[in-house]
Amino acid sequence: MDEIVGRRVRITGGPRGEWVVERVLAVRGPALPAVPRVERREGSSEPVADAAWTLHGVRSNERYVERRERDRLVAVQEELGRAASSCAALIPIKKNSEWWQLAQDERRAILEGRSRHIAIGLDYLPAVARRLYHCRDLGEPFDFLTWFEFAEGDRGRFDDLVGRLRETEEWRYVEREVEVRLLRATGAT
Amino acid sequence: MDEIVGRRVRITGGPRGEWVVERVLAVRGPALPAVPRVERREGSSEPVADAAWTLHGVRSNERYVERRERDRLVAVQEELGRAASSCAALIPIKKNSEWWQLAQDERRAILEGRSRHIAIGLDYLPAVARRLYHCRDLGEPFDFLTWFEFAEGDRGRFDDLVGRLRETEEWRYVEREVEVRLLRATGAT
Repeated sequence: MDEIVGRRVRITGGPRGEWVVERVLAVRGPALPAVPRVERREGSSEPVADAAWTLHGVRSNERYVERRERDRLVAVQEELGRAASSCAALIPIKKNSEWWQLAQDERRAILEGRSRHIAIGLDYLPAVARRLYHCRDLGEPFDFLTWFEFAEGDRGRFDDLVGRLRETEEWRYVEREVEVRLLRATGAT
Repeated sequence: MDEIVGRRVRITGGPRGEWVVERVLAVRGPALPAVPRVERREGSSEPVADAAWTLHGVRSNERYVERRERDRLVAVQEELGRAASSCAALIPIKKNSEWWQLAQDERRAILEGRSRHIAIGLDYLPAVARRLYHCRDLGEPFDFLTWFEFAEGDRGRFDDLVGRLRETEEWRYVEREVEVRLLRATGAT
């Protein structure tokens, strides 16, 4: 498989997928249309005929995480797909043009220096597993798609994590955010 | 126009375009096929029927440049399209996977801390105007496309600039580089 194809993700909302939609919350700006199920498929960007909506992203190089931070993350984080992770969340985010016009050191100072984005995420590892996909340069409606997975008993921790992030200086630059809460399907799609 | 459409570029090699190909140099890895002309079109990604090759990219946020560096660049740089710029160069580059797996601070330390990439470029401003397009996450054969424009009398300065960059530690991570040297067409395409 091409390296780029392997890094791609296609997330669809529609009648099928292994995740049942529990609720869709418009945190800021318009929500995504309500759908019964969501599918996250890596390594593909082929269209899905019956999808109500499709989001594309790509796993890319780190933009802010430094070596010492990555070492700490890698030491405790766990992969997606754990058997105990019966809950998931998709959070697509779009930041405003003011954010994107900042220089690299200015964005880093806000994101980690003052907002502690990386450190806050670390506080919830390994309970809340995450994967970040980039999509700003793909012409998508969002800049990032973050996928979270956690156990039923860790719902409160997930809510705490996103609640803390939403209070940060970094989040003042978020102009659209949707939270799609998901439960692993137990029956056939 | 969509914000993303305005940030896109399509560079084609083929029978038409305002730039006459002077020579194509395979600096590292395979060259691009020889063509008579090159066209750089921003705000479009529509296919060109008779192009021998097409490269896509996008103007994106800065990944390494810090505020104090940007202020210095902005104070002296000039735009593309100057009447005196009868020479141009397209340099597509692909870096290896080792580069992309480095953390942000490690890449910054190599790119500027030790290789002085930003400082070297500044030495040739405003003579050698540049524009950087990103394409790694688009599934393109290269990671970056850099477009340079300069006057006939500044050819030596351009050669000096790229020569200095190719001797840096950063360039050890470059696995493919092509240099397409161009002259502004004086007649019809």
